[in-house]
Amino acid sequence: MNTLLSPDELEARLRAIGAERYHRQHPLHKAMYEGKLTKGQLQAWALNRYYYQAQIPRKDATLLARLPTTELRREWRRRIEDHDGTADSSGGIARWLKLTNGLGLDDEYVTSLKGLLPATLFAVDAYVAFVRDRSILAAIASSLTELFSPTIIGERMEGMLRNYPYISEDTLAYFKPRLTQAPQDSTFALNYVKEHARTPEQQQEVLGALEFKCAILWQLLDALDHAYVEGHIPPGAFVPETP
Amino acid sequence: MNTLLSPDELEARLRAIGAERYHRQHPLHKAMYEGKLTKGQLQAWALNRYYYQAQIPRKDATLLARLPTTELRREWRRRIEDHDGTADSSGGIARWLKLTNGLGLDDEYVTSLKGLLPATLFAVDAYVAFVRDRSILAAIASSLTELFSPTIIGERMEGMLRNYPYISEDTLAYFKPRLTQAPQDSTFALNYVKEHARTPEQQQEVLGALEFKCAILWQLLDALDHAYVEGHIPPGAFVPETP
Repeated sequence: MNTLLSPDELEARLRAIGAERYHRQHPLHKAMYEGKLTKGQLQAWALNRYYYQAQIPRKDATLLARLPTTELRREWRRRIEDHDGTADSSGGIARWLKLTNGLGLDDEYVTSLKGLLPATLFAVDAYVAFVRDRSILAAIASSLTELFSPTIIGERMEGMLRNYPYISEDTLAYFKPRLTQAPQDSTFALNYVKEHARTPEQQQEVLGALEFKCAILWQLLDALDHAYVEGHIPPGAFVPETP
Repeated sequence: MNTLLSPDELEARLRAIGAERYHRQHPLHKAMYEGKLTKGQLQAWALNRYYYQAQIPRKDATLLARLPTTELRREWRRRIEDHDGTADSSGGIARWLKLTNGLGLDDEYVTSLKGLLPATLFAVDAYVAFVRDRSILAAIASSLTELFSPTIIGERMEGMLRNYPYISEDTLAYFKPRLTQAPQDSTFALNYVKEHARTPEQQQEVLGALEFKCAILWQLLDALDHAYVEGHIPPGAFVPETP
């Protein structure tokens, strides 16, 4: 039997999941910001992560279509704007292409999704399916990895600028706006789940949703590690030209 | 531009995909039948593969619900019987539990799906989603990996009986019926796609579906390899008691 947690106890449990399971703990994240990856390995990371970035607005639109109130839909619509951009601003997907481009990959190749690891496809699609099929509470809770992203983004930006001569501030244009967008998003989502998870079952659902999302992000790095660090590239996937 | 292939040319292309991408070529398959895996590694394989086995009848039922004719539905219903059993016969899922049980795993633990690699969940669910969302032609074509399974099953049975003293014929009860079921299934599916893929686009769809399915099976072994051979078990997944 699970007991009912207070909202603050629920938050503490969510933060404990993040401390243990968020991909900040993954060896590939550490290797990346410590400068230990080759350009080919960074290309593979950026190429595969592009698919995650490109599906985020579809994930958010899937949830937007299910949200019952104007207030919730306005909040969620902003997230889609952050990624798809507006008349005045290019948005996260376009900024991600600055990274792949800065690493020497053609936009056309990146957006074709040819060369993607099948594991990336399966994991990202599982995230979109989760948001489509589970409760709105679980779908909102699955976005709570943003609670932990400012730290990882800070480490990544600082480490990559220092350790890889071919990476510039402009190449990393994706990340800087996320340092303000992510806290705004996660504050809303955290307050929402603290207010709406009112039974032990709902609280378990929220905790499970964050574990699920952490597993997605972890698996994206596991698959890259296996293919491009340990050298087991599956048939059909991107093979770097540079080592 | 893709040109129209004759039915026999299409079959040759399908067999070429199998020769290159079917998981018979995967290092973990070879290590398994050559007796190089520990009992803990075999447990991890059987535990994760259980989820694939358990979802196969749901995958087939998803397709069954979409098939337009009695003839097609009778063919596909037989596959569900093979896995779920009948009043007189236990079926493939129950026989898979003889394997996990023979390897020392409790049925309750196995069927709870606790300890599954997230990568297994994502890959298997991607297969069910493919069969739900793509054309009937692509869905049927994705079953064509059965063309290649008798060889791999033969290697696996022979090698596992010879190399692992704790594995018996009874433990491997799942595999023997598959040696007759799989050719029956794949003959039907092959004839179906040869007859119904009548445009270059449809033929590409069929070839793509087989590549997709090969990528699923390959990824299941890649994830096991990374977690249990190279030793990077993700948070929350099964940890073998024996090495």
